Amino acid sequence: SGLVLVKNPHLDLMEEDVLYHLDLGTKTHNLPAMFGDIKFVCVGGSPNRMKAFAQFLHQELGLAGDGEDVADICYAMYRAGPVLSISHGMGIPSISIMLHELIKLLHHAKCRDVTIIRIGTSGGLGIEAGSVVITDTAVDSSFQPRFEQVVLDDVVVRSTELDKDLAEELLACSREIPDFPTLIGHTMCTYDFYEGQGRLDGALCSFSSEKKLEYLRRAYDAGVRNIEMESTAFAALCGLCGLKGESCRFHLL
Amino acid sequence: SGLVLVKNPHLDLMEEDVLYHLDLGTKTHNLPAMFGDIKFVCVGGSPNRMKAFAQFLHQELGLAGDGEDVADICYAMYRAGPVLSISHGMGIPSISIMLHELIKLLHHAKCRDVTIIRIGTSGGLGIEAGSVVITDTAVDSSFQPRFEQVVLDDVVVRSTELDKDLAEELLACSREIPDFPTLIGHTMCTYDFYEGQGRLDGALCSFSSEKKLEYLRRAYDAGVRNIEMESTAFAALCGLCGLKGESCRFHLL
Repeated sequence: SGLVLVKNPHLDLMEEDVLYHLDLGTKTHNLPAMFGDIKFVCVGGSPNRMKAFAQFLHQELGLAGDGEDVADICYAMYRAGPVLSISHGMGIPSISIMLHELIKLLHHAKCRDVTIIRIGTSGGLGIEAGSVVITDTAVDSSFQPRFEQVVLDDVVVRSTELDKDLAEELLACSREIPDFPTLIGHTMCTYDFYEGQGRLDGALCSFSSEKKLEYLRRAYDAGVRNIEMESTAFAALCGLCGLKGESCRFHLL
Repeated sequence: SGLVLVKNPHLDLMEEDVLYHLDLGTKTHNLPAMFGDIKFVCVGGSPNRMKAFAQFLHQELGLAGDGEDVADICYAMYRAGPVLSISHGMGIPSISIMLHELIKLLHHAKCRDVTIIRIGTSGGLGIEAGSVVITDTAVDSSFQPRFEQVVLDDVVVRSTELDKDLAEELLACSREIPDFPTLIGHTMCTYDFYEGQGRLDGALCSFSSEKKLEYLRRAYDAGVRNIEMESTAFAALCGLCGLKGESCRFHLL
């Protein structure tokens, strides 16, 4: 049916669903009227960047007015025509809160055939600066295609594959633009930016430059082409809830 | 000496240290002149709240002008006299990035005897609404006083005790205010707001109301009085770097 799925039998029994961190609710807002026509959601770390992206899209789509600032409580949310642009902050816990509430929002609004694309920057691994990496599979810090979710005090393992057709479609788009190096590869997702990604310049660092390089070499050999902090949770939640999802990240340095 | 410690032999060998997410650096900014007199750092999730807190302090301290907006890139940072007020976003990965760079900032600025206090809200467990919980020890989702940090692909276990004298001092302050219920207890830190904290209203929920209550009862019996998403990393990093740290969180609902 193309609808966004929630997998929670309790939701149907609730009189009202409050999306706390988006400052929206099923009683206070007419979600189908506000969001029923959304077809694309773009998510990225920084509120300012997601605002700039919505303004850019607004112009590209030739829409009237200045674009709409839907909400800005914990996550900044903007829309431009059928596209929502939302910030997710940094790291798995932060993007997870936003995705739970976004998925419920799209479900309550009865949106159909929604595509979600993560944009932004990431650290590249053995690739040219300025390249975009489209993720085929998100892997954890042991290079495994899995997301370990703690549910109460149990650990549940979830799959982290992304939509292969969407990846190919995005790759085809990139080929229409000259000098736009783009590749499909694995994306490694860590819980820490400094010690978790082999950086030598954190407040704490207990490993040598050699140990760092050896780890990054193993990651490269396992197919990792970029490193960031949200992709495994993003892939797992999109997969479970029937959202066609992809992550494309720009390697800046 | 009261100085803030970094535990990273590589830092001394670097010509420049760029604090990426704070948009500050040792070559571009005179950090001792800008921050050398800082004695307190207050951190909390939301940028707007940390700005409001700095403005409140600015008034309370009787300072001239409007207060200073030091940086607002990934984390919003404000100062009011000897107090820095900084947002940390949501979750362990987000606060970890900020703390690595804050600790380096305080180190480069040669600050002495700095106290860091986490403020904000959290979910209370078996306590009166409106209570403030001061954390003695942060525990993980299995109620253990530990923080598991992935360093490259190894797991390192770190201690999560907070400063007991500071906890008692804060408790004494609370007693000077009438009708201000405050207690010292364990704080549980989870990686997820919905499935990880027993909420029945996420996009995914696979457990029953009974299973949720049974889990929360076990948490209460283990001494947990509130639940949030940053305290284990906060306690571990403060402890390792010689920052006197405490977490006081308000139970709203």
